Amino acid sequence: MNGAEALLRTLAACGVEVCFANPGTSEMHLMDAARHVPELRFVPCLFEGVATGAADGYGRMTGRPAATLLHLGPGLANGLANLHNAGKAGTPVVNIVGEHPAYHRARETPLGSNVEAVASAFSHWLRTSETTESLPGDAAESVRAAMAGRIATLAVPADVAWGEGGEPAALPPVEVPDEEDVEPEPVDEALAMLKSDLPTALLLGGKALCGRGLVLAGQIAEASGAALISPFPLARLERGRGRPAVARLPYMREQARALLEPFRQFILIGTTEPFAYFALPDDDAVLLPEGASQCVLTGPDSDVIGLLERLAEALPRKEDGYPRRPETLLPPSGPLTPDTIAGTIAALLPENAIVIDEGMTAGRGIMVACTTSAPHDWLGNTGGSIGIAMPLAIGAALAGRNRPVLCLSADGSGMYTLQALWTMAREGLPVTTVIFANNAYALLKHEYSRVSLEPAASVMDQFDLVRPALDWVSLARGMGVPGRRVTDLNELASALRAGFAGSGPSLVEVPL
Amino acid sequence: MNGAEALLRTLAACGVEVCFANPGTSEMHLMDAARHVPELRFVPCLFEGVATGAADGYGRMTGRPAATLLHLGPGLANGLANLHNAGKAGTPVVNIVGEHPAYHRARETPLGSNVEAVASAFSHWLRTSETTESLPGDAAESVRAAMAGRIATLAVPADVAWGEGGEPAALPPVEVPDEEDVEPEPVDEALAMLKSDLPTALLLGGKALCGRGLVLAGQIAEASGAALISPFPLARLERGRGRPAVARLPYMREQARALLEPFRQFILIGTTEPFAYFALPDDDAVLLPEGASQCVLTGPDSDVIGLLERLAEALPRKEDGYPRRPETLLPPSGPLTPDTIAGTIAALLPENAIVIDEGMTAGRGIMVACTTSAPHDWLGNTGGSIGIAMPLAIGAALAGRNRPVLCLSADGSGMYTLQALWTMAREGLPVTTVIFANNAYALLKHEYSRVSLEPAASVMDQFDLVRPALDWVSLARGMGVPGRRVTDLNELASALRAGFAGSGPSLVEVPL
Repeated sequence: MNGAEALLRTLAACGVEVCFANPGTSEMHLMDAARHVPELRFVPCLFEGVATGAADGYGRMTGRPAATLLHLGPGLANGLANLHNAGKAGTPVVNIVGEHPAYHRARETPLGSNVEAVASAFSHWLRTSETTESLPGDAAESVRAAMAGRIATLAVPADVAWGEGGEPAALPPVEVPDEEDVEPEPVDEALAMLKSDLPTALLLGGKALCGRGLVLAGQIAEASGAALISPFPLARLERGRGRPAVARLPYMREQARALLEPFRQFILIGTTEPFAYFALPDDDAVLLPEGASQCVLTGPDSDVIGLLERLAEALPRKEDGYPRRPETLLPPSGPLTPDTIAGTIAALLPENAIVIDEGMTAGRGIMVACTTSAPHDWLGNTGGSIGIAMPLAIGAALAGRNRPVLCLSADGSGMYTLQALWTMAREGLPVTTVIFANNAYALLKHEYSRVSLEPAASVMDQFDLVRPALDWVSLARGMGVPGRRVTDLNELASALRAGFAGSGPSLVEVPL
Repeated sequence: MNGAEALLRTLAACGVEVCFANPGTSEMHLMDAARHVPELRFVPCLFEGVATGAADGYGRMTGRPAATLLHLGPGLANGLANLHNAGKAGTPVVNIVGEHPAYHRARETPLGSNVEAVASAFSHWLRTSETTESLPGDAAESVRAAMAGRIATLAVPADVAWGEGGEPAALPPVEVPDEEDVEPEPVDEALAMLKSDLPTALLLGGKALCGRGLVLAGQIAEASGAALISPFPLARLERGRGRPAVARLPYMREQARALLEPFRQFILIGTTEPFAYFALPDDDAVLLPEGASQCVLTGPDSDVIGLLERLAEALPRKEDGYPRRPETLLPPSGPLTPDTIAGTIAALLPENAIVIDEGMTAGRGIMVACTTSAPHDWLGNTGGSIGIAMPLAIGAALAGRNRPVLCLSADGSGMYTLQALWTMAREGLPVTTVIFANNAYALLKHEYSRVSLEPAASVMDQFDLVRPALDWVSLARGMGVPGRRVTDLNELASALRAGFAGSGPSLVEVPL
């Protein structure tokens, strides 16, 4: 068989189930081979950032990589920003990028570029397959590399894809590092902190926020009285009634510091020290309180579950004592305010929903309100590159099969990758997108006011999304997604109920 | 003054008039400084690919760089694909990219990335300013580098921008290479070709296609009988009634070869050997006929005008003999076909219009039909990365001041950077966008049919933009641009007339 078919069969054999695709002419043999590998579902995307963001959503929910199929260097370039986000989330992703044959690469051609240079900044694993025979093995290696929570990028020259002599490869065994090479973790130090009387917080990331990791973290918190905190950049957190409550650091540095201030000891598990996003002239972005102790139990790469088990076993076991929180009640009908919007969403959130949160300034308060909602997953923006919410929702919806997805997006953020709405419609995905329409890059207005002694109206005007205002109901209609602009809580509740009950996508524009 | 103000004053002093901006928090000091430099016009863009594509359009029309203002590595990443196109066009562009202070770069942070690595693949000049004192000089160097038709990228750490002690810098003198270092051009060989009886074509690029270069090329063609041909990737061509006719190579390789087949001698001026975009299993992408002679008179970098002058002076001068072509007549009313659409556009194209052409398969035939239209400029996609038409139109419209702009886009291409419509509305730009709605990546359907012995319906389906179809009138409305879907020639003519007469943007969806 040709290289293209051997490549796709290899991906499928290695457990890759979905390929988010925006191919071009150089990828036609790969597309042609798709018919022979029906177990690999191709999902068309109209912009590459949609494909990479969708792969991030899929990988976050399954722990396994989706593939993307991208067109040469410029196509890959369009997908980089959401690969940046996926990389910060520790999501496994395999990018298959078409490339010219070597003899065509040597020419000055319109689409000639240095694919490896394009990939380098946001790929942890990177290779160009030089022969049809080596292609399947390279593809299997790319999946293995991705499985460790990495971005793997494989460039496939067209002649390597169309050449004959490919044989599918299997997933190579995961390399286990020699025990001697592994730094011993300071488990005893962490236990001493947990047993001390000083106020202690566990800062949790990665696998500590889901499944068994979260259960263990909850046990440790119960047994020790330590608080559970996640960074603001949040790949995935399981939460809601009946689950251990993890406080997420707020984006705003003052609020984040206020949350951290009471604690004298921090145990970092599966994450690194949190900082504010930006350094400012009068603020160096440090968030942890001065003089507090830090115990870095494990970086994001290590065996988070194993370490949590060691901690939990060394502490007295208590009954799960998570407070039996009441159901969230629907607020009374009335005007749309940040609080009533949050309350309405929290009350109506269906059980087992997946919430995508890129509400930025507009969506603050919703996550806290949903603490007592039915159990759900919460996925945030991990790399600060805005424009991932709707793509992420695509991947999460495909991974979640029939789980309802609530996608919260600010209007400014949503505009980066609005093409995602089309793929939601095309694939019939159960995504309810809520657009918070404040008609501004509100965060920038805030940040500008902070750095400028006398903010200028002419500069502030650059952050207003007005003249014209965006009309998201029309934008959604243009891509086949039914939308509605709501003006009060009743309408919001009705639109959300309809969205959650529907089998396909819908959009709700909420003016602020 | 602080570094930010010194930077903007330097850009303005070096002749930069426009900055296409999509800033974030790390660029707030640069935005704040904008109020002190009103001669630098800031144009907000809702996606970075719009900003870089607009800079390309501005640079192609003026020969001078516009600036872009982009947010860290991921923001730059979103602008790369259209920087690829700008680089292939030889357009001067200066990218100002915010960066974290060095002490914040050393931390693991959400928005941390390697900005220089992101920039490298599509920047010819690249620097990170390390001090406030060096920033203005670096900015002036970036403009000088760009003036040579290059992509220059300057990373500006936030503390370098907010630091005090900046002094605006002036444009350094352009370095002229020593004459000894310049390869002598084979002018005599070219002249011998022009004086021979063998069929000869001039393949023209860059400055040979506009202004004095085009006039000289026309004189050479008149005097020698040589044909004038441009590559398909076309940065800018002046054409229409009264101007020398330059045949553009068609995108499709068979048609390109048919056009080139009659010639035995090719003189390349300001361009490189044309190849088909892609190598195929049975086709190595060579376009020039076998056995024909090539004389590469100058690459894209050299003194194109000087060389054309030397050729023209050495040939007998003839009166301008460009055929007095008749005005294009409006076709009779009736159904929309490729021919009647092309004829209608050609007949109504206003004098001095700027045409942006990314019609792909759908727009073929229009350029040929416009050969006898009123004088106009034609700008194409130079790098094959689709999604540049509407951004390019923004830059061309700003550069052209009140010249009408006709933006021809395929539906698939347009979806990559549709956010451009908002900036058109915001800035009140006289752009009439025509969307050819064939509801498909039609080019891919063609290319797929060519590589597959038995095209599969399931694969072909991946190239159909249906279920749902796109509705461009709604998309445009969502961004404040009035749109209309036309169903016959009368409606098309009426929509075009209204668009050309209006002072702001409009959109016409043409079903195919």
